[in-house]
Amino acid sequence: MKILGVEHIGIAVKELDECIEKFENALDLKCEGREAIEASGVEVAFFGCGSSKIELVTPAGTESPISSFLSKRGNAIHHICLRVEGIDEWLAFLKEKGIELIDTVPREGASGKRVAFISPRSMCNILIELSEDKP
Amino acid sequence: MKILGVEHIGIAVKELDECIEKFENALDLKCEGREAIEASGVEVAFFGCGSSKIELVTPAGTESPISSFLSKRGNAIHHICLRVEGIDEWLAFLKEKGIELIDTVPREGASGKRVAFISPRSMCNILIELSEDKP
Repeated sequence: MKILGVEHIGIAVKELDECIEKFENALDLKCEGREAIEASGVEVAFFGCGSSKIELVTPAGTESPISSFLSKRGNAIHHICLRVEGIDEWLAFLKEKGIELIDTVPREGASGKRVAFISPRSMCNILIELSEDKP
Repeated sequence: MKILGVEHIGIAVKELDECIEKFENALDLKCEGREAIEASGVEVAFFGCGSSKIELVTPAGTESPISSFLSKRGNAIHHICLRVEGIDEWLAFLKEKGIELIDTVPREGASGKRVAFISPRSMCNILIELSEDKP
């Protein structure tokens, strides 16, 4: 049960194509992929950045939880995803500590990873995602 | 002129001590240091996280730009700091591309690093900091 590093930083944006172009043009980063994540109702685009990624996230439909975030905040950094070892043990550990979880069991994230979100209510209003790579 | 990775993720918080305790307790991270950065009017606390850091930032006085962010948003992820090689060349490159800069020359950041912020107006409303390690 370990934190290995920052898997990605999730940035909510309204105009995915325009923001991809800005990040590529200004920061000389390369968009390495786009993926629709149906379970979360979002489309993501990611840029490799050392051992981490920057992930642009946009709603894939009107029902996405990202939609309400965007209408309240506009484009903004949405969450931090930590790469962990032993996500099931992490969730048990957090539960035992009384930390509120959005996902009590891992669900499927981008690239088939197992992911789970911790409730911002338990983390100073910050949305933290845990992610474990496929074995 | 290269991006080497994510140096840190800056999180603006109102209650530094309380948030340090939450991050230590829930995520089993260790606060590795606290530092007042007078040039920016903030106090920071950081946690190592793989090759990156999580940095909690709180206003050190009433004049801090973090104060207005906090009163509008409450605790929230504030900026992404990218570790770069050649920060002077980066700033020249960005200027040439017409990207608006908050710092046209690097200033001193935490641990004596040379840092500069790009204006969110040019980056889809996202605040990006560039940071170069001391040689």
